[in-house]
This record gives sequence, C-alpha cells and structure tokens, in this order.
Amino acid sequence: MAAQERGLKIYHLNIGQPDLATPASFYEAVNRFHAPTVAYAPSPGTPELIDAIRRYYARLGVRLEPDDVLITTGGSEALLFTCLSILDPGTEVIIPEPYYPNYTTFVHAAGGVVRAMPTYPESGYHYASREELERLVTKNTRAILITNPGNPTGVVLTREEMRMIADVARERNIFLIADEVYREFCYDEAAGVPTMAAFPDIANNLVIVDSVSKRFSACGARVGCIVTKNRELQQAVLKFCQSRLSVATLDQVGATALYGTDPAFFAASKEEYRRRRDTVTAKLRQIPGVRFTEPQGAFYLMAALPVDDTDKFQHWLLTEFEDHGETVMFAPGAPFYETPGKGVNEIRIAYVKSQPELERAMDLLALGIKAYNSRPRGNNP
Amino acid sequence: MAAQERGLKIYHLNIGQPDLATPASFYEAVNRFHAPTVAYAPSPGTPELIDAIRRYYARLGVRLEPDDVLITTGGSEALLFTCLSILDPGTEVIIPEPYYPNYTTFVHAAGGVVRAMPTYPESGYHYASREELERLVTKNTRAILITNPGNPTGVVLTREEMRMIADVARERNIFLIADEVYREFCYDEAAGVPTMAAFPDIANNLVIVDSVSKRFSACGARVGCIVTKNRELQQAVLKFCQSRLSVATLDQVGATALYGTDPAFFAASKEEYRRRRDTVTAKLRQIPGVRFTEPQGAFYLMAALPVDDTDKFQHWLLTEFEDHGETVMFAPGAPFYETPGKGVNEIRIAYVKSQPELERAMDLLALGIKAYNSRPRGNNP
Repeated sequence: MAAQERGLKIYHLNIGQPDLATPASFYEAVNRFHAPTVAYAPSPGTPELIDAIRRYYARLGVRLEPDDVLITTGGSEALLFTCLSILDPGTEVIIPEPYYPNYTTFVHAAGGVVRAMPTYPESGYHYASREELERLVTKNTRAILITNPGNPTGVVLTREEMRMIADVARERNIFLIADEVYREFCYDEAAGVPTMAAFPDIANNLVIVDSVSKRFSACGARVGCIVTKNRELQQAVLKFCQSRLSVATLDQVGATALYGTDPAFFAASKEEYRRRRDTVTAKLRQIPGVRFTEPQGAFYLMAALPVDDTDKFQHWLLTEFEDHGETVMFAPGAPFYETPGKGVNEIRIAYVKSQPELERAMDLLALGIKAYNSRPRGNNP
Repeated sequence: MAAQERGLKIYHLNIGQPDLATPASFYEAVNRFHAPTVAYAPSPGTPELIDAIRRYYARLGVRLEPDDVLITTGGSEALLFTCLSILDPGTEVIIPEPYYPNYTTFVHAAGGVVRAMPTYPESGYHYASREELERLVTKNTRAILITNPGNPTGVVLTREEMRMIADVARERNIFLIADEVYREFCYDEAAGVPTMAAFPDIANNLVIVDSVSKRFSACGARVGCIVTKNRELQQAVLKFCQSRLSVATLDQVGATALYGTDPAFFAASKEEYRRRRDTVTAKLRQIPGVRFTEPQGAFYLMAALPVDDTDKFQHWLLTEFEDHGETVMFAPGAPFYETPGKGVNEIRIAYVKSQPELERAMDLLALGIKAYNSRPRGNNP
C-alpha cells in the first residue's frame, strides 16, 4: 500500500523545491502592477528585467549588451530553445553524468543525442581529464552541456576545470552550454561566484542558462534567461521567443524586483543551505556503508547506499516501511545516468527542508536501510 | 526615415493584442495569493485551474476528465508540445492558408513539413472541398491544423465543414489540431459557440489548443491548455510538461479566477468587436479597389489592396507617408502564406482598437493607397 494511503507523513527530499521564503519585493511589485489589460510583454523580455539582469552580471564583472539577454519561461525554456536552435537530428551534446534528467528530453526534442562523459563518486564527481573529454568530441558534436554548481552532485568545478572545458569548446568550435542556475550556492567562500562568463575568449561559444528559481527561491515564477554573445544564436533563439510571443508579464515585473534584492539575501540563503548540508553529511557519515563526497555547491548530494537497488528500496520505503507513522522519499540515482546500469545504488538527496526535518529524514533513511537489508527475503516479490 | 524617428503617431493594426480590460478578478486573485514561497505548480497544471476549465467546457456540453486537460504556457506552448509529440522529421501537417505564421516555427521545430491547403478571398476563405483536402493527405501526414474562428481571415467554419474535416481526420486516422482560442468571437448569433469537441466520434484524433489570452483579454498571463482524450498523446505531452516543470503559479491562480467570469463578459466583448468589425468593413467598402470578405469571427480581416506589394506599401507608409502627423501599420499578407508569391497584395487588419482610432486608421489607409499609387514612380528606388 502506498505511503499516502497508509496515512504516513513523508519527508520529501526528492525534489529541488526550496522552502525558503521568496523575497517580499516579488509580491510587492506584482501587487503594484495595475495595467488595465494584462498584455503581451516584448518577445525578448521586458527592457526593465533585461537591464536588471545586466546590472546583476555587472556585479560579477561581466558586461552584457541588451541583446545578449533573452528572457525565457524558466531555465527550462532556455534549455529547450537552445537545443532547438543549435541541434539537428543526429547531432550530439556531451554531458557529464550523472546529470539533470530533463536535459535528455530537451536534447531529444531537437533530434539530438546525448554523449555521456562519466564522472565518479570516488573522485567527487569532478570532471574527466582533457583527454577523456576530447575523446568524446566527434564531427557531430555541437555542444558541451555542464551544470555548475552541479545538480545532482553538488560538485563545483575548479577554475582549472572551467578553463579546460572552455579551451576544448573554443578549439573544437562547439557551444558550451553552462547551466549556472545554482551559481550563488557555493560553500567555499574563497572560490567566489563561479561563471563561465569570466572567460571572455569563449564569448562566441558560450551560452549561459540562468533563472530566478533557485537564486531567489521563486521557482513558480518561471522566469529564466539565455545569456549569449553569439549573434547567430541570439537570432535563432529570438525566433523561438517570437513564436511563443512573450514570457508572463506579471512574473517579469516580479522578477525585476527580485534582482534588486540586497545581496545579503544570497549570503543568508547560502549560509542556511551550508548548515543543512553539514547536517545531512554529518548524519550520512554515521550510516554504515554509505559513500558520498561532500558537496561544495547547490543543494543536492549524490550518495551510494548499501542496498541492491535504490529504486526498489524507495518503493519499499513507501509501501512497506514506517517509523512512528513516518517515511522518507528521495530520488533514485539511475535516471541521472545515460549509461545503462549506472546509479542503481545511488540516490540524490535535495536538502531543501528545515534542520529538524532533515535530521529526522536522515534518521529514517538509516532505519530504512537497516530494516530493508534485514527483511525476510522470501517475502520479496 | 522611420515613422517613429519622424515623430509620427502610428495606428497599430498589425498585432492581435486586444485593448479591452482584463476582468478585475484576475488581479484580485493574484493579489490575494500570499504563499511564502512562490513554488512550482504541478506539471500538468493546478487542479483548481483544470477544474475551472472542465466547468467551462461542461457549459459547452463537453465532458472532460481531469487528465484530458494539460495546462500550458499560453496556446503557443500547447502548439509546440503538440508538434513535438506527434511529429517526426519529414512528417507533414496540412494547414489551410493563409494561416498564423508561428505555426510554421512550431512544425519546423519538430522537424515537420507544412502542406498548405489553399483558400481564397473570392470564396470568403472557406475551406476546400473534401476532395481537395484528401488530395493533400499522404502516408506522411500526421495532422490537419485548423484555426476556428480563423486568424488571419476571420472565417468561421460551417457545421458541414467541421464535420467534413472531422470525417477526414477519423477515416485517415490522423490528428485534428483545432486552435480554438477565438471560440467566443463569432458574430452570427445563430451559429453558437463552435468547437470540434462537439464531435465525440473523433475524440481519439482531436487535440484542442485553447488559451485565456483572447477570451479574457489576458494575453500576458501566458496560460493556455491542450485538451485531448487521446491517452497516448496525453502521456507524450505530459512528458514535455514535466521536463519544463510547471506553468507560472500566480498566472494559474489568476486564470482560475478568470474562468469564473460572468458569461456576460463574453457577450459584451463580442458586441464590442462586432461593432469594430462593422466600422472597419464600412470604411473598407468606400476605398476603391479593395476586396475583402466580411469576417464572421475573431478580430482579424484579410483584405486585398489595389497596390503592387503590401510589404513595400507598408514600408512606404512608415517612411514616406503622413497625414497630420499620423500613419497606419498593418500586417503584410505574404507571411500568412506558405505558397511563394501568394498574399503579396493582401494585408491583415487586427481590429483591436477603439472605434475612433479604427475610423481614423481606415481613413489613413484610404489616403495612403491613393497617395502611394499616384507617387512619382521615377523616385521609387
């Protein structure tokens, strides 16, 4: 019987929906907006939002022209339009795995093929060597797609790794699609705020996917953007932007206000997630047989569990297990891998809950692993 | 020099952005919404909005289950996801021309090909005979895509035409994509509110594209939906809905309230647009050499002008012409046709302005045609 039918409380660590409050400026701006007609916004985005994003990038030391920013309905539409713009049937995108599973849908929508570059828990999911990356580049390769900081691994690329990837993209003249929606969530203060836009020599190859969703805890606003200085790509993406007319007007008004948020908000958010990471990793270290690398960014963590199959284990947690009327849910690892058979004993934990909830959820995970591995096997269907 | 640089007032009849006020219920609902976190909505749409749409269809005599409705970011995303779900490279979609040019972008994004079915001003842009339609169906045909009431023509299909198209879709087992976003704007009261959903025998072939944009004068909300009872298609579209996570939360709250709008709003809107149509058509009849058919629905009109090329004429109106510091802008006809060379002397007029503005705009068109045709040809570059 499913957990909900059994009346259980489920701790959801399976989705990346932050629980932090959206800055009040979002609602304030939305509630101030009173145009008699809720009309289409300009297809590339409102000038006010584009300017707000340019000012935000300027603080990172990146100078953008208005045409370099195209507002999209979330980072998702940014990824879809980028794929539709640069891929033809049979062309390839190199993606380090494990990766965000929806990338596959966007690449396939454009007729493209994913070429997975393996990374491993043993090396903290850091990227392959230059040789291993270059080995995957073929005449059909159109892009390398990276997430930095990483979802689901929490890996933050070193400056040297970023430079290496940038070099390969430039020398092979392929696009580098950098999904940087978790940019502000880096727990090593010394590393600063990483962005591929810091390498001006790859400006013509670079496409940054960005979003207000995680940065301002405003996932439901569905406001993202594509940042690129490649004129040809700007035109191709703009055609898709025009075909869908515009991004929601009110949400662009709200997002513009969000970009005026005091940077202290980022610092406070980051500190909260860092504490949560520390809670989760401290608890995980106490569970025998669990292997993981401490994530340096975002709010995800991949862990290998001492179970046969995390998909079966998750199903069992929801249908057979309970402790004081509670159970826990995470994301099984296999869907984060393109390579068949990989990730079957891994899970992704999204630490987007309060400290007490995370502590209890981790205790439930520990209890669950123990009970799962000592259950009567004959009963296992 | 461009009209704006010349400081001219331009009457914009080139875009279908209604000027009527959005019902106040939209802002009221949005301003009441105060969840601390602006979170993702469910990928298929909020249950409240889906229920509101089901109640709206029930009033049209159409019974929908919750799974039959998938909320999309405007009718545009509904069209894109439908195309991505049903088309493979090289497959074909039959579209009566002239048609909404963005259809081409959506079909091409999925690797599909448009096969245009000609319709003619002489026969009021009504659809071809069954023989002409069937002649276009090949083994690669996946769908017929219609807009009813029509954009850009304003044609409203007769019950017999609808039945004929439904029969072809069913017998050839291809999808019928019915873009019905202008459904409430039919000026023949006796005809009622047309929808292909009135033919239950094609339920498995039918995909309705719908939207709050025109219905509630809320284009900037970007809330639409796909309505289909085809389970396989529901699953394919849902996969795209999941990949982009959700439609904007606040706009779904606002759209839910819009569906509670008193039907008197539709009656008043329709009456206003009917008067505007009458104003535009009365003025057009007075311009020598202009040919058009009185539109029966939507808020567009295609007209053939006594000029050599409406694209050149439009450019001339913006750069060379003025009357008392004013000029007029419409949409040249050629982009509404797939067939090369067609529509060069046609324009689309969107009558989405107030009566006095429409009267003045039509007078400017008359003056413009006269001046354009008597300009010194030697100066024409």
